[in-house]
Amino acid sequence: MNHPETLSLNDADQLNNQTDVILQKVVDAWTELQTQQPLVHCITNSVAANYAANVLLAAGASPAMIDNPFEAESFASIAAALSINLGTPTTEQMQAMQISAQTVSTKNTPWVLDSVGYGTFLKWRSEMVDQLILLNPTVIRGNASEISTLAGNQVESKGVDSTVSSNEVYLQALPLLAHSECVAISGKSDFILSKELNAVIQVNGGSFLQPKVTATGCALGALIAAYCAVANPTIATISAHIHFAIAGKLAFEKAQIVGSFNVAFLDEIYTLSADKIWEYADIEVLGL
Amino acid sequence: MNHPETLSLNDADQLNNQTDVILQKVVDAWTELQTQQPLVHCITNSVAANYAANVLLAAGASPAMIDNPFEAESFASIAAALSINLGTPTTEQMQAMQISAQTVSTKNTPWVLDSVGYGTFLKWRSEMVDQLILLNPTVIRGNASEISTLAGNQVESKGVDSTVSSNEVYLQALPLLAHSECVAISGKSDFILSKELNAVIQVNGGSFLQPKVTATGCALGALIAAYCAVANPTIATISAHIHFAIAGKLAFEKAQIVGSFNVAFLDEIYTLSADKIWEYADIEVLGL
Amino acid sequence: MNHPETLSLNDADQLNNQTDVILQKVVDAWTELQTQQPLVHCITNSVAANYAANVLLAAGASPAMIDNPFEAESFASIAAALSINLGTPTTEQMQAMQISAQTVSTKNTPWVLDSVGYGTFLKWRSEMVDQLILLNPTVIRGNASEISTLAGNQVESKGVDSTVSSNEVYLQALPLLAHSECVAISGKSDFILSKELNAVIQVNGGSFLQPKVTATGCALGALIAAYCAVANPTIATISAHIHFAIAGKLAFEKAQIVGSFNVAFLDEIYTLSADKIWEYADIEVLGL
Repeated sequence: MNHPETLSLNDADQLNNQTDVILQKVVDAWTELQTQQPLVHCITNSVAANYAANVLLAAGASPAMIDNPFEAESFASIAAALSINLGTPTTEQMQAMQISAQTVSTKNTPWVLDSVGYGTFLKWRSEMVDQLILLNPTVIRGNASEISTLAGNQVESKGVDSTVSSNEVYLQALPLLAHSECVAISGKSDFILSKELNAVIQVNGGSFLQPKVTATGCALGALIAAYCAVANPTIATISAHIHFAIAGKLAFEKAQIVGSFNVAFLDEIYTLSADKIWEYADIEVLGL
Repeated sequence: MNHPETLSLNDADQLNNQTDVILQKVVDAWTELQTQQPLVHCITNSVAANYAANVLLAAGASPAMIDNPFEAESFASIAAALSINLGTPTTEQMQAMQISAQTVSTKNTPWVLDSVGYGTFLKWRSEMVDQLILLNPTVIRGNASEISTLAGNQVESKGVDSTVSSNEVYLQALPLLAHSECVAISGKSDFILSKELNAVIQVNGGSFLQPKVTATGCALGALIAAYCAVANPTIATISAHIHFAIAGKLAFEKAQIVGSFNVAFLDEIYTLSADKIWEYADIEVLGL
Repeated sequence: MNHPETLSLNDADQLNNQTDVILQKVVDAWTELQTQQPLVHCITNSVAANYAANVLLAAGASPAMIDNPFEAESFASIAAALSINLGTPTTEQMQAMQISAQTVSTKNTPWVLDSVGYGTFLKWRSEMVDQLILLNPTVIRGNASEISTLAGNQVESKGVDSTVSSNEVYLQALPLLAHSECVAISGKSDFILSKELNAVIQVNGGSFLQPKVTATGCALGALIAAYCAVANPTIATISAHIHFAIAGKLAFEKAQIVGSFNVAFLDEIYTLSADKIWEYADIEVLGL
């Protein structure tokens, strides 16, 4: 793993400087992603499998959906990062998740846990998430309902969609930093809690159409894993969210209806550039 | 569940009035779908999972693909409707189908049974369909081969595609109304047998390209379930078919080749409106 | 099965004549595919399921994704061809693969084995491929890493992507003709080893964007199976590769970014014609 140096934000006297330091590292991470094309081991759901693979390929990574327990250990041992998503688990996938998470934990390979559907009405997966968290995922991500519930709060959920806003709950996610380097909450704005920076990074952008395309959150989780293979957890998580936010924003300028938007979104994932990151990234660093 | 009043078609003296009464209720159902965004529990196949979720999102519903037996009961108990599709069943999905169907039957939650591939050469699923029918699905749907075979006739099938026409077999489906409120047969024209109306509603429209896009029938089944959450079974089934027929017709005006057509189709699912329903819906009410 | 006559290339004195003889048979195969719309039994992975079905439908075939062991025998017995793909196997799919491969072997129905991920780090599937090869698949296909490893060489692989070039390894694949009629290696150029012709056919074309769209190789494997239902193995394999190469080339002329490219690609799969085959097919016959 080729991790850029740790952020030295203490030197930054102005907000502008601080976000500039971050954005420069995001540009570096994106460049590394194109160069290294890291192998990302994905265990994901039947809805997201094709879409997440296409997003990773378009972004520059090399995805492999290996979700059986018999190959989980040997494959996780060669992957540059692992992405685990609880969308539509099967018994065999659940076994594969445990084995591969244990494998990457031992090898210090970064991994992302996407707690799709965590909550009262989906106990089987929720118990698995509770177990996996003990293996200290590099990044935990989910929507506001999932993350808030995961952090111990009582939240109503509506299936796999959130009923609360990311900006209302992000501070509730703080306890999860005991188990991970970053916690990422997606919503109208995304919020990333960083243990390293002891701060919250708010990522603005995207389009209201993104939640109208299924599996965008799942693909984002896989993309965080891809960036984790080439950057430190904080920068990786911010980079993936900025990648999505810019792609969503620019895709919506081209196409305002879901079907066409989704095609344009994949185009924009593919055509991100350093210039676009500097021009369109919209982040704020908040205290924790 | 917010069910509009029962149709009072006996008051309609003219065919025009009768279809207008139906179309007004279809417009109401579509409006309710946008407002309520009902949670639809889908157990579907690996080919349709992504596509059906995107169609439901575009149409205004909130899909959740929960297909494991361990979460089937608790999730079916909170869903506004259930869609069961026999496309590529696994043992765990089969268990989930039984559990969730039993759960919604007890709670009077509407559910749709899509008998993909029913016939001689696919016995495992066909036996499951035979069992599930005894739980009285709200709506049974399939293509002409599947529905005709399911109703006890000897029909040749070609894989999961139909070898007979919907207009030749719809009357054969009558016995299935002993187990359901509606039977829907898709084809060049779609035919919906309604127990409530004691009539057959023929829905025209669509495009010859729809069968050239995989899983359109599966997505239609899920959309019927979504509408069942906001309208009575007859209107829900008609609404979903009209939604698809108009989207197919208008998509074909924009794009005459499968790849582009499919993108345009999703766009048209998303941009349906009351005006489009009044302008483009093409239905006929036939005696039973 | 309606197999055109065996190639009589010995009569061809000039290279031009030889490729013209092949291309005429490719045109015939494509025409037969449109006419017969053969039923293709596919056991494929969760990433490719939707995409492969859409490619087969667009190409003119009739796909059915039947991947459970309980229906594998009866369905394989009526299919015109079988496609087995090892992308994301489950235990039940593995059983279905064995049963269906045995069934088609007995009935002399053509079948394709796509050895996705064959190699050191994915032993479970690799052992299954080793077993399935003993049942003599009509065509074995894969990328250069997979095929070279399968032929007994030591090759580094990167997940499911190739680390070697097809033109470097195609001669290494020769031993695999002991178990099959054709071996197809996809890459920048594709190479098809034909036992019948005792030659290698190089197929040029396509676009560098094809590997940036997931599951294109898997869909190609399924398309080879479809063509095997209407042509002899050599012509079928060449036809499927030419179909893909032309679609990729023409799609890239329309769209140079992955999302749009993929839509255009499916359009071009659908709109292939005899004229386009004659105009754009680019093959070379090499000695073996």
